[in-house]
Amino acid sequence: MARSIQLPALSSAVLEAQSSGIREISNLARNLPASLRLEVGQPDFRTPDHIGEAGKKAIDDGITYYTPTAGLATLRAKIAAKVERVNGVEVTPNQVAVTPGGCGAISAALAAITEAGDEVLLPDPCWPNFRIMAAWTHTKAVLYPCPPENGFLPDLDRLAALITPRTRVLVVNSPHNPTGVVYPRRLLEQLADLAQRHNLWVISDECYDEIILEGSTDTMSSLLDDGRVITVMTFSKTYSMTGWRLGYAIAGEDTITSITKVLESMSSNTTSITQVAGEAALDGPQDCVAEMVGAYRRRRDLVVDLLREADLLINVPTGAFYIMADISPSGLASRDFALRLLQERGVGVAPGTAFGTQAAHSVRISLASSDVALREGVGRLAELVQELSAAR
Amino acid sequence: MARSIQLPALSSAVLEAQSSGIREISNLARNLPASLRLEVGQPDFRTPDHIGEAGKKAIDDGITYYTPTAGLATLRAKIAAKVERVNGVEVTPNQVAVTPGGCGAISAALAAITEAGDEVLLPDPCWPNFRIMAAWTHTKAVLYPCPPENGFLPDLDRLAALITPRTRVLVVNSPHNPTGVVYPRRLLEQLADLAQRHNLWVISDECYDEIILEGSTDTMSSLLDDGRVITVMTFSKTYSMTGWRLGYAIAGEDTITSITKVLESMSSNTTSITQVAGEAALDGPQDCVAEMVGAYRRRRDLVVDLLREADLLINVPTGAFYIMADISPSGLASRDFALRLLQERGVGVAPGTAFGTQAAHSVRISLASSDVALREGVGRLAELVQELSAAR
Repeated sequence: MARSIQLPALSSAVLEAQSSGIREISNLARNLPASLRLEVGQPDFRTPDHIGEAGKKAIDDGITYYTPTAGLATLRAKIAAKVERVNGVEVTPNQVAVTPGGCGAISAALAAITEAGDEVLLPDPCWPNFRIMAAWTHTKAVLYPCPPENGFLPDLDRLAALITPRTRVLVVNSPHNPTGVVYPRRLLEQLADLAQRHNLWVISDECYDEIILEGSTDTMSSLLDDGRVITVMTFSKTYSMTGWRLGYAIAGEDTITSITKVLESMSSNTTSITQVAGEAALDGPQDCVAEMVGAYRRRRDLVVDLLREADLLINVPTGAFYIMADISPSGLASRDFALRLLQERGVGVAPGTAFGTQAAHSVRISLASSDVALREGVGRLAELVQELSAAR
Repeated sequence: MARSIQLPALSSAVLEAQSSGIREISNLARNLPASLRLEVGQPDFRTPDHIGEAGKKAIDDGITYYTPTAGLATLRAKIAAKVERVNGVEVTPNQVAVTPGGCGAISAALAAITEAGDEVLLPDPCWPNFRIMAAWTHTKAVLYPCPPENGFLPDLDRLAALITPRTRVLVVNSPHNPTGVVYPRRLLEQLADLAQRHNLWVISDECYDEIILEGSTDTMSSLLDDGRVITVMTFSKTYSMTGWRLGYAIAGEDTITSITKVLESMSSNTTSITQVAGEAALDGPQDCVAEMVGAYRRRRDLVVDLLREADLLINVPTGAFYIMADISPSGLASRDFALRLLQERGVGVAPGTAFGTQAAHSVRISLASSDVALREGVGRLAELVQELSAAR
C-alpha cells in the first residue's frame, strides 16, 4: 500500500511502550541455529499425550463452535475444584473466567477495573507485557523496587511511598518472573494489608502457582479473601501447553461479570478445542507436573552451583523456572552483555533491562532448557564475565 | 469470598456498557430445549474434515508451543496470497497480523490507534461488541444512522455532521451484520473520501467477505490503499471455524507493528493448532465455502419470500447470513417482541435494539439455521406479528 502524505497517528502510548527486550535477543538467536536458547520462557516438554488426545477428540466430536464467553461450564467447575485442591481457596464456578492464556486474563482484568489515568503498581523487575497493557488501558505504570540486594523482594517502605490518590491496582507476582522468588507469607500479609488500607485492587499473577521448587506455597489469593484479589493462573507452564493458550481469572462474581464483558469483545471465547484439552489436563494424572517440576529443580541446583562457583549468584529461586545471573563484574549494561554473549559465544539470555531498572546488572536464564544446554551456556556466560572483568 | 464493606470500583464504562441483547435471548432459549434458535450468529455446518485433520496433525506433531505474536510466517504468507486472490488487494506477509478471531483483530487495532477521549464512528445498527470495545479503550462510540427507510445504508449527510476534531476512527462494515447489506461501490468511495478529507483511520470489518449471496464484492480495502484502512477478516464464517478462534488484520507495516505489540500483551499468540488448521483451510479445496454460501442463498430466498408474503420485509440481503424482519405492526418494542416470540412460540430471534436505535422496530433472523427451522420459525414470527397487529 502507498502511504499518503498525511495519515492519522498511532496510539502514542503504544508506540512509546518499549518492545520486549527478550524478543530482540530471540529474533537474533533464531538466525544463529547453533545458539543455546536460554532466553526463552517456555517449557521444553511436549504437552502430555492424554491432553493432546483430548484435543484431537474434541475436533472429531465437532466441539468447534462458540462456547460461553467465560468458558465451558464443565471446565469452569473443574477449575474451581482445582483451585480448592491445589491453592486452598474455595470458589464457585461463577468466580472463574476462562481466557486465552494468562495474559488474556490479566488484560481483561486490567481493562475491567481501571479508568484512564489510574496508576498501576508493578514490581520492578517484572514481566514486560504489564507495561504494554498499561499503554493501551491508558493507565500509568508505577514501578515499585524489588532490588537485588533485597533478594528481589519488594521494598515495602518505598512501595508505600509511591501510593497516590490515583493508585488503583497493586500487581503482585509470586512465584516471580524473572527472579524465581516466592514471597514469604509475612510479606504477602503486609502487601494485603497495604491493599486494604488504601483500598486497591490486587492482581495476583500466579501463573507459576504449581512450579514450586521448595518451601512456601502461600499465595495472595489464599490470604486475602475480601473480594479485591483477581488471581490469574494458566495451563501454559503447569502442563506445558503454551501454544494452546489457556488461562483463567478467579475473582468475585461481579468482577467476573465485568471481566467477561471485556472478554466477549476481545476474544469471544477461548479456543473450544483448547478448553476440552484443559479439562483432560485437570482430570488426568498429575505426575507429569511433578516430573517437570523435578527437572526444573535439578536444573536449578545445577545452575546455582555453576553461578555460585563463578561468584555470580544473586538468589536461589524457589519457584517458577528462572534464575538471575549477576553480570556486574563485566562492566557492561545487561543488553550489551546479552548481545555480546549471543554474538560471540552463541548463548541467548534475557537482559535484565527487559524487566525494569532493578535488574539492570543481571540477566535471566530460563531453566526450561535442557541440562546440557544449561551447563554449556552458563559456563560460557561465566567465562565471558570473567574475561571482561579481567580486561577492565 | 466475603465482600468487605469497601471495595475499589469496577471500570464505570465497562459496567455501563450494555450487555448483549442477543445473549439475553440465547440464555433464555438454552433453557427451552425445543426452541428454534434463529438468534445465533454461527454457521450450522461442521468445520470441513480436512481442516480438522490438519489441527489433529498439529497436535501429533507437537506444534503446541508459542508462535511469533503476529502468527506463523507460513500462515501470514498464505493469508497475504488469499487477500490478493479473493479480495484483489496486494499485501506483503508483514502487513498481516493473525489474531484470536475477528474480534481479536478489531480489539487490538482499536487499542493501537486511539487515545483516550477519541471518538469512533460506528454504524447504527452495528455488531454490539464495538460498543464494549469503546468502553475499555476509553473512546466515545458515536453512532451514524443507517436507517431502515434507506435500506440500512448510511445517511452520509448525517454521518458527516457527526465528525468533530476528536473523531479518530470510521468503522465500516460491509457485508453488514445484522442487516446483510453489501455497500455499493459508489458509497464505499464516498466513505473513503470522507475518511481522507478528515484524516480518519478506517476499520473495515469484512468478517463476511466471502459470504456474498450475489452482486458486488467491492470492499473498502480494495478501494482505499493509502494506509489508513485496517481490514479485519476471519476464518470463523468462511470455513465454519467459530470455536477455533482465527482472524486477522491487514494494514500498513507500521500499523501492524503497533497492533502486534498490543496482541503480545493481550493474547501472546493465536492458538498454534488453530493456525495450522487455518493453513489447511487456505490450501485445501474451496468448494466447502461455495456450498455453504449456496445454502445461505437458498435460505435467504426462502425467508425473503415468507417475509414478503407477510409484508414484513425491509431489505433483501446480498451478503452475510442475516435478514431483518419488520415487526413494527406488532406495536411492541423489539426486545419485548423477541421475549414473547421465544416464550409463547419457542422461537429465538435477536432484537434490533441489541444493535442500536435504528433497528428498534425489527429483529434479526440468522440464516445460519436449518431450512426447516427457518420455515417454521419465520412462520410463527409472522403469525405473532399478525395476531398482535389485529389485537391493537
